[in-house]
Amino acid sequence: MRDATQLANDYIALWNERDLARRRDMLAAGWTTDATYVDPLMRGAGASEISALIDAVHARFPDFKFALDGKIDGHGDHVRFSWKLGAQNMEAPIKGTDFVVRDGDRIKAVTGFLDKVPAAA
Amino acid sequence: MRDATQLANDYIALWNERDLARRRDMLAAGWTTDATYVDPLMRGAGASEISALIDAVHARFPDFKFALDGKIDGHGDHVRFSWKLGAQNMEAPIKGTDFVVRDGDRIKAVTGFLDKVPAAA
Repeated sequence: MRDATQLANDYIALWNERDLARRRDMLAAGWTTDATYVDPLMRGAGASEISALIDAVHARFPDFKFALDGKIDGHGDHVRFSWKLGAQNMEAPIKGTDFVVRDGDRIKAVTGFLDKVPAAA
Repeated sequence: MRDATQLANDYIALWNERDLARRRDMLAAGWTTDATYVDPLMRGAGASEISALIDAVHARFPDFKFALDGKIDGHGDHVRFSWKLGAQNMEAPIKGTDFVVRDGDRIKAVTGFLDKVPAAA
């Protein structure tokens, strides 16, 4: 089974994946079919909706990439990690923390919180 | 309905309440009957088990109190806040972050993570 670190790395790779077909494969392999995602700005359930949320972030921030920020923490079915979103060679303007509930090897629910947002956002 | 700040304050007050009857009242008023709590060290479901977890913390740390630490953050049914546990006039040796899922006005699930633990713990 994926440990918390691998799960978090796979999760960030999904959010950075711009190819729709590869994103579908990643969602099919690592998320339950009815997986949910919710944060203060958006929500979705199932691979199509979650993939569309990721597309929307790419459309809004075409030059930005996600990266893990700090330590990854997990116990039982629960994983917590923080991330940052920004362009290369700049201080990331957006940061957040995500809480994942897993069902065995698959992500079944993600709840996200924002830790840093641009003043203009 | 309680806002995120009130919910977090009530939650901390519950964890500091040493009177069993008052804790039962607080759990009956503010938590669902099947509410769950899980962190890296302990888990429980329902008022009796959750109250027993709180008792166990009081037994282990008789001079310590919980306090909120930093900002309280909520969206939709989700609330996040950090806390510290320690004695008066000392740097808190234990810190954590809790994620709450609410069902209307009541807490239905808490997932806790530890941010700081004593080296000897």
